[in-house]
Amino acid sequence: MESSLAIVIPAGGGGTRLWPRSRQNTPKQFLDIVTPGRTMLQETVDRVQPSLAPPENIFVITNRRHVPLVREQLADVPAANIVGEPQGRDSAPAIGLMAALLEKRLGPEAVMAVLPADHVILNESAFRLALQNAVEAAGKGYLVTLGIPPTGPDTGFGYIHRGQAISPAAYEVQRFKEKPDRATAEQYLSTGEYYWNAGMFIAKVGTLRALYKEFLPQMESVFARLIAAAGATAETAAFDELFPTLQKISIDFGIVEKAPKVAVVPAQMGWNDVGSWSRLMDVLAHRADSDKNIVVGHHIGVNTTGSLIYSPEKAVTTIGLENLIIIDTPDALLIATRDRSEEVKKVVEQLQSEGKHEIL
Amino acid sequence: MESSLAIVIPAGGGGTRLWPRSRQNTPKQFLDIVTPGRTMLQETVDRVQPSLAPPENIFVITNRRHVPLVREQLADVPAANIVGEPQGRDSAPAIGLMAALLEKRLGPEAVMAVLPADHVILNESAFRLALQNAVEAAGKGYLVTLGIPPTGPDTGFGYIHRGQAISPAAYEVQRFKEKPDRATAEQYLSTGEYYWNAGMFIAKVGTLRALYKEFLPQMESVFARLIAAAGATAETAAFDELFPTLQKISIDFGIVEKAPKVAVVPAQMGWNDVGSWSRLMDVLAHRADSDKNIVVGHHIGVNTTGSLIYSPEKAVTTIGLENLIIIDTPDALLIATRDRSEEVKKVVEQLQSEGKHEIL
Repeated sequence: MESSLAIVIPAGGGGTRLWPRSRQNTPKQFLDIVTPGRTMLQETVDRVQPSLAPPENIFVITNRRHVPLVREQLADVPAANIVGEPQGRDSAPAIGLMAALLEKRLGPEAVMAVLPADHVILNESAFRLALQNAVEAAGKGYLVTLGIPPTGPDTGFGYIHRGQAISPAAYEVQRFKEKPDRATAEQYLSTGEYYWNAGMFIAKVGTLRALYKEFLPQMESVFARLIAAAGATAETAAFDELFPTLQKISIDFGIVEKAPKVAVVPAQMGWNDVGSWSRLMDVLAHRADSDKNIVVGHHIGVNTTGSLIYSPEKAVTTIGLENLIIIDTPDALLIATRDRSEEVKKVVEQLQSEGKHEIL
Repeated sequence: MESSLAIVIPAGGGGTRLWPRSRQNTPKQFLDIVTPGRTMLQETVDRVQPSLAPPENIFVITNRRHVPLVREQLADVPAANIVGEPQGRDSAPAIGLMAALLEKRLGPEAVMAVLPADHVILNESAFRLALQNAVEAAGKGYLVTLGIPPTGPDTGFGYIHRGQAISPAAYEVQRFKEKPDRATAEQYLSTGEYYWNAGMFIAKVGTLRALYKEFLPQMESVFARLIAAAGATAETAAFDELFPTLQKISIDFGIVEKAPKVAVVPAQMGWNDVGSWSRLMDVLAHRADSDKNIVVGHHIGVNTTGSLIYSPEKAVTTIGLENLIIIDTPDALLIATRDRSEEVKKVVEQLQSEGKHEIL
């Protein structure tokens, strides 16, 4: 594979879904939630190093306050490759800015792969193969997405309906589908023609640049001014002034769903977006003990099964519990049933409305 | 009522049933578990003060290491009234020693009431009336127990079968019954002739002294030597030497069930021995919020009902929970279903076997 593959890692997630472990100041991508000792961001880089992309081809865009954390965790990545947003404007501005930056640094023929920092991929060889196939399709001018073969009728993801095959490993995209209701999701599953949209995109830099110029042309002059300011003493002031003027829109709505030449590479690679405590339990299932509990810390359980117990600093004793999620941190304790773990967001909203920012 | 009523408060409980709130170093009688700001020991004294017994007639027997705690919590009680056991030898030695001490201090005609430090009594006027009736029966030479009219077929208590009435408020005891099985408890309940044995005894000092001389005569010389040593410089050494020689036996087995003249005074007084977290929930039911949760601390609940949440130092967030007991302390966290809360003792045993004394 040529050395002009650039990895762009969006690392701007806000860290509410795995609260209280993840926080505003340390969202999950900066924590070793999946593999002790390696953060999710580091694992995202590990997956492409060294053969797919060297450190100088790794680029990260994150919230400005997290730039020091990224530099610390990715010590081999050049500081100039790490871009800090003064505020989140959704994914289209962030990725568009990185594409403009890469055009200047690597030229339009380089291929860029957008790989979010907070996804889990258990089967790395399947991932690498899919990425190589995606790069090949990108070389033909496609905007390529990785599609995850659904393991169930999940209503929490957008779906991709494949069309004609363009190679043994890739299909044209017939249509993107919003998050479906349960019945629709079951119908999708039965056809075998739908994939989960994992939010991973691969394209030539020039392909993506042309799409931005066509569909989000008002961003062009802002990108140019931001890139001119990057690394200069006026960078902070320029970003503060210009970034908020960019339209807040996702790359899915703003670019991908409008692009004429979109492909999907199916990738059965043990992917999980760790979008809830329950999904993290799926990822950690291999670490469960004989009572099917996943424990980090000291736990004494009496008739307790199927639970996730995270308490590195305190002995947790449980009696008669089933399928619970117990997350103890120095200043906040969460106890939830597994099937309602997504409602953590309600708790976070309530804490926000109560002004309890110190524990968010 | 004459001033020669002495209150003897056994306060030697070990503090395992309400773990992790109560600990070896601070068993529940020394905690404000029921009424914020007043410990159970203090409430035991409050119930008889000042009209039933002045501070100089309050006597406490406890583990030696808890004597400073008793002095601190009962500042009005003379220090000489607080006796420390070097080790627990069950209730017969403790109460027998106090009876011998009271004979010397107040004479054999004084009446003593044994009122454990870790019981809850919600209806204080009913308690005071029952105590007065018991004192009256004690004056006739009876060893009197307070009997709790059962509120259900509880298998966790001993029962008292009443016999003939000896006054409008008291019955002779026909027989004491061990903790029954469920069917037997239901049969007891249906007759209306059975009471829970609450472990409260009232008798003339002389009556109890005569019973000890008859049924536990080997203790007499030890009591005499302990009393001679009390308050002297050799007290600690004498107690260390002599106390372990006393037979380890309960007053129920050693004295009460053998006594020829035993009476029971029924007392419907909102009594609870707080023998488990679930029983404490019964006591605190009036403090439940609109979701039927009893909360001490800061709690954010989503679809959480019927639970006890104790967490004075940390925000607790719960989602989808029902009938749980959640007790968070700085070094230990307990989460149990309400119907299995008595199994806390299994947890405590496991911690003991693991040598985790620092959190016991």
